[in-house]
Amino acid sequence: MRIIRKALSEEKHVSTKTSAADLVTETDHLVEDLIISELQKKFPSHRFIAEEAAAAGAKCVLTPSPTWIVDPIDGTCNFVHRFPTVAVSIGFAVNQELEFGVIYHCTEERLYTGRRGQGAFCNGQQLRVSGETDLSKALVLTEIGPKRDPATLKLFLSNMERLLHAKAHGVRVIGSSTLALCHLASGAADAYYQFGLHCWDLAAATVIIREAGGIVMDTSGGPFDLMSCRVVAAGTREMATLIAQALQTINYGRDDDK
Amino acid sequence: MRIIRKALSEEKHVSTKTSAADLVTETDHLVEDLIISELQKKFPSHRFIAEEAAAAGAKCVLTPSPTWIVDPIDGTCNFVHRFPTVAVSIGFAVNQELEFGVIYHCTEERLYTGRRGQGAFCNGQQLRVSGETDLSKALVLTEIGPKRDPATLKLFLSNMERLLHAKAHGVRVIGSSTLALCHLASGAADAYYQFGLHCWDLAAATVIIREAGGIVMDTSGGPFDLMSCRVVAAGTREMATLIAQALQTINYGRDDDK
Repeated sequence: MRIIRKALSEEKHVSTKTSAADLVTETDHLVEDLIISELQKKFPSHRFIAEEAAAAGAKCVLTPSPTWIVDPIDGTCNFVHRFPTVAVSIGFAVNQELEFGVIYHCTEERLYTGRRGQGAFCNGQQLRVSGETDLSKALVLTEIGPKRDPATLKLFLSNMERLLHAKAHGVRVIGSSTLALCHLASGAADAYYQFGLHCWDLAAATVIIREAGGIVMDTSGGPFDLMSCRVVAAGTREMATLIAQALQTINYGRDDDK
Repeated sequence: MRIIRKALSEEKHVSTKTSAADLVTETDHLVEDLIISELQKKFPSHRFIAEEAAAAGAKCVLTPSPTWIVDPIDGTCNFVHRFPTVAVSIGFAVNQELEFGVIYHCTEERLYTGRRGQGAFCNGQQLRVSGETDLSKALVLTEIGPKRDPATLKLFLSNMERLLHAKAHGVRVIGSSTLALCHLASGAADAYYQFGLHCWDLAAATVIIREAGGIVMDTSGGPFDLMSCRVVAAGTREMATLIAQALQTINYGRDDDK
């Protein structure tokens, strides 16, 4: 955490001397290596799926083995700009089932945790999703996603338009999928959807949302698939279904097919 | 501040028993009345422009008299949903010139201040805008605005599309104009634009941004007009001009013409 906060507080000229992408990669690597090396010492037989390793070509395949799923810095664009909505996310699965998740909001020092069957908490306070079922009363969160070609942008904006036409109270884009999902778990928003996020954005958050009483499903309305690069999450099944029905699909492929 | 934090921490059933709109109005009124009555005791000859008074029919005319411009709760939709991005904004003008501004982030307890000629600060730390001039490296903030008819939504989404086509790093929508403008003042974002905000959203933030070295202008590229219900702000004149050139106008009328 200190590594991230130090990088966030460094003068902006650091990011103009090197390229923005370099800075991210450097801190991302530092944090990922630190997390994985500490966990490997304690659990030498466990497997890891992590953002930087995947970017370097490691396969993202979830086997039945105990697996840690790590996003060293979620909100990388925010991070580059020192926009203070940045998190570390660590999820853990056994037999392809998510067992627990931890998300840490680096600048506000909020620790979100969830463990299957044992509830979800933020700094010790139990989390509970919103019970809202009416889309016209909903605050909805989303993220733009990494693809910016004209056709993808049109679909992204058209999805936002559909929800605003359905009179959703508001749509928010905060630049961190994991922290948006934590807002959902805490009841501060009613739904979240995104195309183009990854298993390391979803693993920890999925446990936290389920344990806060929420629903995580595929954008098709079918069962959630950690590797599908898309998600709808909501406080209630009714709300998640309404959102899924409103969305047009943006195809990002699968994490385990890259 | 305690009134707002208390309302934010109250159980959600409060907002379902009464209507969401009622809850806002109630707390908005409480906070606005408190701020104005305290200031009136100290400055009995001063004038006030404030959101709730304007909603109740008071004219928003900025005269040369010393005038306090008050937004008791900025981020009302966030507030209703307990989404923790909510602020109080108080600006002060004399001879139609903005002299100082104060914005308080209620949940993170950050106090942003700016005084003409004397710099801008957040909890004592001096603020400095980003020096970015290249739109393709920019993090841009905006808000959806209150009008949600199909034609207005189309323009809002088309403006976002233009900026993303121009390869802005990202666009964020956090639900509070004043706090978005504070992020800009602190250098955490490179530009902000909006149609449909009000003088009480802009008064304090304008002083803070200018004192942090930033530019506040009209969306036409011309001089800023506090009553025009529209704004472009950026760390540099080059960036503000690029944003203004990219935008299509959404007509919201003027605050002093309602």
